[in-house]
Amino acid sequence: MSFSPLIVQLMDSLQCLPGVGPKSAQRMMLHLLERDRKGAFKLSEALQQAAEKVGHCQRCRTLTESDICEICSDPRRDAGLVCVVETPADVLAIEQAGGFKGHYFVLMGHLSPIDGIGPEDIGIDQLLAQVEGDEVQEVILATNPTVEGEATAHYIAASLRKLGVKVSRIAHGVPLGGELEYIDGGTLMHAFAGRRELVD
Amino acid sequence: MSFSPLIVQLMDSLQCLPGVGPKSAQRMMLHLLERDRKGAFKLSEALQQAAEKVGHCQRCRTLTESDICEICSDPRRDAGLVCVVETPADVLAIEQAGGFKGHYFVLMGHLSPIDGIGPEDIGIDQLLAQVEGDEVQEVILATNPTVEGEATAHYIAASLRKLGVKVSRIAHGVPLGGELEYIDGGTLMHAFAGRRELVD
Repeated sequence: MSFSPLIVQLMDSLQCLPGVGPKSAQRMMLHLLERDRKGAFKLSEALQQAAEKVGHCQRCRTLTESDICEICSDPRRDAGLVCVVETPADVLAIEQAGGFKGHYFVLMGHLSPIDGIGPEDIGIDQLLAQVEGDEVQEVILATNPTVEGEATAHYIAASLRKLGVKVSRIAHGVPLGGELEYIDGGTLMHAFAGRRELVD
Repeated sequence: MSFSPLIVQLMDSLQCLPGVGPKSAQRMMLHLLERDRKGAFKLSEALQQAAEKVGHCQRCRTLTESDICEICSDPRRDAGLVCVVETPADVLAIEQAGGFKGHYFVLMGHLSPIDGIGPEDIGIDQLLAQVEGDEVQEVILATNPTVEGEATAHYIAASLRKLGVKVSRIAHGVPLGGELEYIDGGTLMHAFAGRRELVD
């Protein structure tokens, strides 16, 4: 004996969510069916609409249901400055930090030859075409400081340099509020290599 | 700036799931939209169907889309033995342990005067009517060994005794495979109080 077919189907489907295994799925199912049917209907509707209508911005490739996303269509933002990131979550993190007023280009991943993800899969040709065609002065590479993110940054930098555009990489070092004794060695070495002279 | 409206709506809706906060909701949204749209549609459909069609078994009150659940309608099970549990998950746990071949009665909660949950909300009148009308020989109380579960068990036991039916409570003690030194004091005291003479 187990739960009835519709309940089993719901628990199976919940397990497509990252970090949700059989036990969490059961807990979610009981919560939704016993205490929050309205939430279940709302979530069902939201999933259906988003999965159907959300696509990619034609300019920066971020997730959006518009043809051109909010940032790309904002005339107050500086189109001469393009920040390259791996995911839409990175865009949000940078926006929440505030301060950056340029455009973005979202790779939706990183180069990963092992998984068969090459330059065309992360839209590098589209990025090059935009940089070439538009009035871009600087491209800031903000991919993750992981092996794949670094390799992707290097590849893009090499491709962009041929077009004569300024290319920069965000600084890596000790995070604000971080305590030196708890920072890993790689980050510390980056922080030393990237040191800047103090001038008054 | 934030994500587009449909994405925000999806992240908000995901947070109706227990244990899912803003960060997990964002991770789930990115996973579903970037890598598993099929899963999103499947989950949407499963939620809608379950929320619409799953109700309670008319006999034992467990969650099911049938009028009478699989266990209640199984003629091979012993209707003379009724096990009272708090949730459908408890039924599943007992079924998976195997060995119990009677019927269940699912309270779908426990007595909780503070939250306004009284005997009628957990179907005790329905249980009494069933015990009175049917050929029930024994009612096994398997509510949780929590303050509320114990209080609920005591209340049901008092109500059932008036009907002259045998009432029992599952044993509480040291779990199999448990090591004494790691067992809490309350459980140990229960294990001592519930000791049984070894006979050969």
